[in-house]
Amino acid sequence: MQIISAEPLTPQAFAAFGDVLSAEGAPERMINEGLCARHHDRARLDFSSGRAGISIFDAVPRELPYEFDLVERHPDGSQSFIPMTAAPFLVIVAPDEGGRPGRPRAFLTSGGQAINLHRGTWHGVLTPLAAPGLFAVVDRIGEGANLEEYRYPERFCVVAPGR
Amino acid sequence: MQIISAEPLTPQAFAAFGDVLSAEGAPERMINEGLCARHHDRARLDFSSGRAGISIFDAVPRELPYEFDLVERHPDGSQSFIPMTAAPFLVIVAPDEGGRPGRPRAFLTSGGQAINLHRGTWHGVLTPLAAPGLFAVVDRIGEGANLEEYRYPERFCVVAPGR
Repeated sequence: MQIISAEPLTPQAFAAFGDVLSAEGAPERMINEGLCARHHDRARLDFSSGRAGISIFDAVPRELPYEFDLVERHPDGSQSFIPMTAAPFLVIVAPDEGGRPGRPRAFLTSGGQAINLHRGTWHGVLTPLAAPGLFAVVDRIGEGANLEEYRYPERFCVVAPGR
Repeated sequence: MQIISAEPLTPQAFAAFGDVLSAEGAPERMINEGLCARHHDRARLDFSSGRAGISIFDAVPRELPYEFDLVERHPDGSQSFIPMTAAPFLVIVAPDEGGRPGRPRAFLTSGGQAINLHRGTWHGVLTPLAAPGLFAVVDRIGEGANLEEYRYPERFCVVAPGR
């Protein structure tokens, strides 16, 4: 079994897979008489022939070390995961290599970070690390299965950063 | 100054203004090999001639009792507020009465609830009650100001439920 060290989630490290949505950096605008910072339009959304929808996901919490062999992707749309708690969660993604996922990478959010997976990005299933595992998910509503799954021939084990 | 008692946020009480997004009730589907419940497509989104975007709002926390006299609405699109913490927040809305807002109502979320304001709904500014006041906001990106403001001739004071 191969070991994967989780990395801290940063916009730079995650750029090939999606967007990190957070209040870091200077806001584009101050609104509400100066009492609210608007970090404007931070996700590259793409719903192809469908439309945007918001669903609520309630997932069983996992823990590190975390083993997996399954990833999936949505060829027809982006998918954003917005945690509804301040708890960090685990994000597993993989580069595409000719239609199949390459070696996975794992990122650990810092709390206060949501993510948007770009259309077609290989990723692991939703993996909160604390209860409740509650997320708002912005993804494509439309025709078609919009799902490809891939099971690696070996299992991977994600360990905490620096382990 | 008029007193408004905050009400618990329920889908029924909020129906005239928008949607309550939560994991309450039976999910439409179980996904990820049974480890995640998907409460599917819970928001009535409407971006008219624009498109959906996700922005991050970072607002100064307020406290009860809370005074206000200003509300606003977005004639061209719905607006969803997804809290990125488990802390309850205050939601102020008002019915439209011939192009002007009527008497406001105030709702207190229970944690684990996001909201989607239907297109054109009069509402108060974003009012978290704890730090950090961090929200993902799904709203319309497009041309035009998409904003109407109204200042009531008197101030209102929102107090805790049952006060």
